[in-house]
Amino acid sequence: MNNATDFVIFGGTGDLTLRKLLPALYRAFNENNINSKTHIYLTCRNQNDIDNYLNKAYDFLVSQLNQNEFEETIWKKFSQMLKPILLDIKGDGWDNLKNALRPIHKTERVFYFAIAPALYAECCEQLNKYQLNPVESRVVVEKPIGYDRQSAQTINTAIGHFFSENQIFRIDHYLGKETVQNLLVLRFSNLLFENMWDHRSIDHIQISISETVGLEGRAGFYNEAGALRDMVQNHLLQLLCLVAMEPPNKLNSDSLRTEKLKVLQSLRPITQDNIHEESVRGQYISGNINSTQVAGYLEELKREKSFCETFVALRAHVDNWRWKEVPFYLRTGKRLKERCAEVIVQFKSVSHNIYAKSQGIIQPNRLVILIQPNEKIQLQLNCKNLAETETQLKPATLDLNLNTSSNSFQSDAYKRLILDVLANDPSLFIHREEIDHAWAWVDPIIEAWKITDYQPELYSAGTWGPEAADKLLSQDSRSWHNAQDLSSETQQ
Amino acid sequence: MNNATDFVIFGGTGDLTLRKLLPALYRAFNENNINSKTHIYLTCRNQNDIDNYLNKAYDFLVSQLNQNEFEETIWKKFSQMLKPILLDIKGDGWDNLKNALRPIHKTERVFYFAIAPALYAECCEQLNKYQLNPVESRVVVEKPIGYDRQSAQTINTAIGHFFSENQIFRIDHYLGKETVQNLLVLRFSNLLFENMWDHRSIDHIQISISETVGLEGRAGFYNEAGALRDMVQNHLLQLLCLVAMEPPNKLNSDSLRTEKLKVLQSLRPITQDNIHEESVRGQYISGNINSTQVAGYLEELKREKSFCETFVALRAHVDNWRWKEVPFYLRTGKRLKERCAEVIVQFKSVSHNIYAKSQGIIQPNRLVILIQPNEKIQLQLNCKNLAETETQLKPATLDLNLNTSSNSFQSDAYKRLILDVLANDPSLFIHREEIDHAWAWVDPIIEAWKITDYQPELYSAGTWGPEAADKLLSQDSRSWHNAQDLSSETQQ
Repeated sequence: MNNATDFVIFGGTGDLTLRKLLPALYRAFNENNINSKTHIYLTCRNQNDIDNYLNKAYDFLVSQLNQNEFEETIWKKFSQMLKPILLDIKGDGWDNLKNALRPIHKTERVFYFAIAPALYAECCEQLNKYQLNPVESRVVVEKPIGYDRQSAQTINTAIGHFFSENQIFRIDHYLGKETVQNLLVLRFSNLLFENMWDHRSIDHIQISISETVGLEGRAGFYNEAGALRDMVQNHLLQLLCLVAMEPPNKLNSDSLRTEKLKVLQSLRPITQDNIHEESVRGQYISGNINSTQVAGYLEELKREKSFCETFVALRAHVDNWRWKEVPFYLRTGKRLKERCAEVIVQFKSVSHNIYAKSQGIIQPNRLVILIQPNEKIQLQLNCKNLAETETQLKPATLDLNLNTSSNSFQSDAYKRLILDVLANDPSLFIHREEIDHAWAWVDPIIEAWKITDYQPELYSAGTWGPEAADKLLSQDSRSWHNAQDLSSETQQ
Repeated sequence: MNNATDFVIFGGTGDLTLRKLLPALYRAFNENNINSKTHIYLTCRNQNDIDNYLNKAYDFLVSQLNQNEFEETIWKKFSQMLKPILLDIKGDGWDNLKNALRPIHKTERVFYFAIAPALYAECCEQLNKYQLNPVESRVVVEKPIGYDRQSAQTINTAIGHFFSENQIFRIDHYLGKETVQNLLVLRFSNLLFENMWDHRSIDHIQISISETVGLEGRAGFYNEAGALRDMVQNHLLQLLCLVAMEPPNKLNSDSLRTEKLKVLQSLRPITQDNIHEESVRGQYISGNINSTQVAGYLEELKREKSFCETFVALRAHVDNWRWKEVPFYLRTGKRLKERCAEVIVQFKSVSHNIYAKSQGIIQPNRLVILIQPNEKIQLQLNCKNLAETETQLKPATLDLNLNTSSNSFQSDAYKRLILDVLANDPSLFIHREEIDHAWAWVDPIIEAWKITDYQPELYSAGTWGPEAADKLLSQDSRSWHNAQDLSSETQQ
């Protein structure tokens, strides 16, 4: 059980707070993992928001939580922790906060920046001005951290003026997923996988995050950013780090960050010389998703033209001893056929095939780590078809997320990460240097696109992206594992 | 579908025929895997047996088959294939057989010796005298083949006078088990296991066949033989061969036999110099099995004293590149606590433990191949306890016998092997040289016991054998995997 904490959420009325943070806090409280003397302060910019806050929070919890999770009796107790507070980051109200907070030697203190990154610096300055940021306090920030390496450094330096690195918790909610952590447990506690985890046994790795949504009102931001900045620089590279990193010597944040940094530093640069071989850009036009006609990107954007990519695919290489000649295929995009986030570890075939074709095909072993929409880890291997008189191979799928209800399992990543913040455990958060090195790899790709005037290839909404993305793999005699493949495979 | 065959069973009224062979033939017929023009001749020594044969066969099938398997309509068709025939191997009736058999160029011909090994030679001579054994015919023989290397050679030579080696099918029904064959498929079609299958990844291997029964009326034979001759020389060494052999270059009988022979030839000799370190002998005294008091061996035998072992445990080594310093612990005995046949492949631990003890114990990965009483293949590994907020390891058991009803799966090994005989596929049968090399390893052990007057250690019926058997492993800091362990482990 963590200590009593003053948990201050800047942006108390925002979507992130209402949809993610409050349900996560409720769940943690319901599981008895939050000290009942904890106060949750929620900044509001006007009195009306304050007056309505508990009603609003109630409505959101009822709609966001699962049916069995919400209980009036729990809500009664939980709501007593919620303390909406009148505060405008750029204006008044800081005195209100200062007066509300309890002494740091008696209560832990966490600031959660559920606000636009443009406000981070201002918020830090005010905290400092009102002397609310002693060295024991912690601050949680959300992505995106910057727009490129330079702007990320500016933001990190601004925060760093007032908080030292060990006080700063940068969230990537993918790292809070139980299945992502199970991947680490599987890797580091089973000789079976330890033995398989290198270029001798792994053919290639795929990391895909596909979305069905379009711009969702983020047009202004997104058109300046694009898929590479929005998704690859953070989520996909973080997943790549966890799959590719050397086993850490200890399971603490320093050791994990050291290994993740080594991966980012080993990424083979993609430059204007190989940009057309190693990257694919796409932009969706109108199309059909689940029988619904949706508009194209330019129509949504209401512009004639845009250089912005809504889809990107990359062939990355980690140039170190472990991953010699093992491609990491990364892919993400909007308005794709299915919503899905997954990591595929495709092992090599057995060295020699002693089974005739009539006995069935030997499919290479494969580990499928499915993060969205449901969480699953599946191991695909071959066994004997027991029903048959003659030996016949049968591909089989084993579920390694071994809980009884794993078919519909979905962990609350925010709950996990908030509890880690409360416990002062930074293992699953992103270090400043990781942000820096991720941008150091991403910036030259964007630069190369511009220099070579690499216009995005158009793809219809509801497909798996532009044709060039398929060619990226087919020229290596490989193919993407697409979400719907799963349902057609034998489930055991 | 195999060709029409004259399938002659010598010993048509014996237990093996009625309990095993007829049910297997019925099942194969029921599954449409036996040519309906096949004749099954069953030798009987008097007219009374012949007159009653169909009634007797009917009764045995009803009692031996599972509830859903037996159908009157199938029996009507199946019984038309059954042809009891008056024949005394040492006497009259050979003309009856000669007249019944169809020409070899029109019908395949199989002789199944479901008779005492002492009659093998006589039976072969008669077949030859009546010219019933053309080169196209096949003969199936059951264990035991001999009492030591010399007597086995005598029997094999006697049969070999009249049948060439490729006509002889020596049965070990353990090799007909689906799960044993699945072990081969798992080994040879999954990189996951190919990578794990040597001294770098395997800590040790256990092969156990435990029986709860006592002498069962075989007192005379058994007291001369003992557990080593009765079980180790054939079943346990055959299982050891399949686990330990190099992957064959092809999946045919020649390649498989070549690899199995190499294993037998690589077995490190146990001699009088190390007999007390590497072997344990036991003999049961009265005790309690499943709440029933049973008599001791000497009481059953009705003698004062016996040198015979009813239990044996061995630490064997395969001296080749793959198995450097990997012990193979073999164990078999009568009147043990549970009836069970299993192979345990115990892998090594991960090289380094980054999980604190509070997070759970890292158990080494383990493959459990359970052959009796039910057939299962289980892979034991560690994963994350998803329910817990903090990372906790959870040992988990995966079922690799991937058929829906695997909890109660039991294959009919005789059916499988009879179909292989009909298809003329000797892959799963024992070559003469295998018998020879198995005895070549077993004979010196028995010799060493005699020279050192190694009296069997007494153990109570209903236990897991003498204490010395536990010490054999505990001095290596290991322990036997006992059948009841399974039920207490987490089943997922």
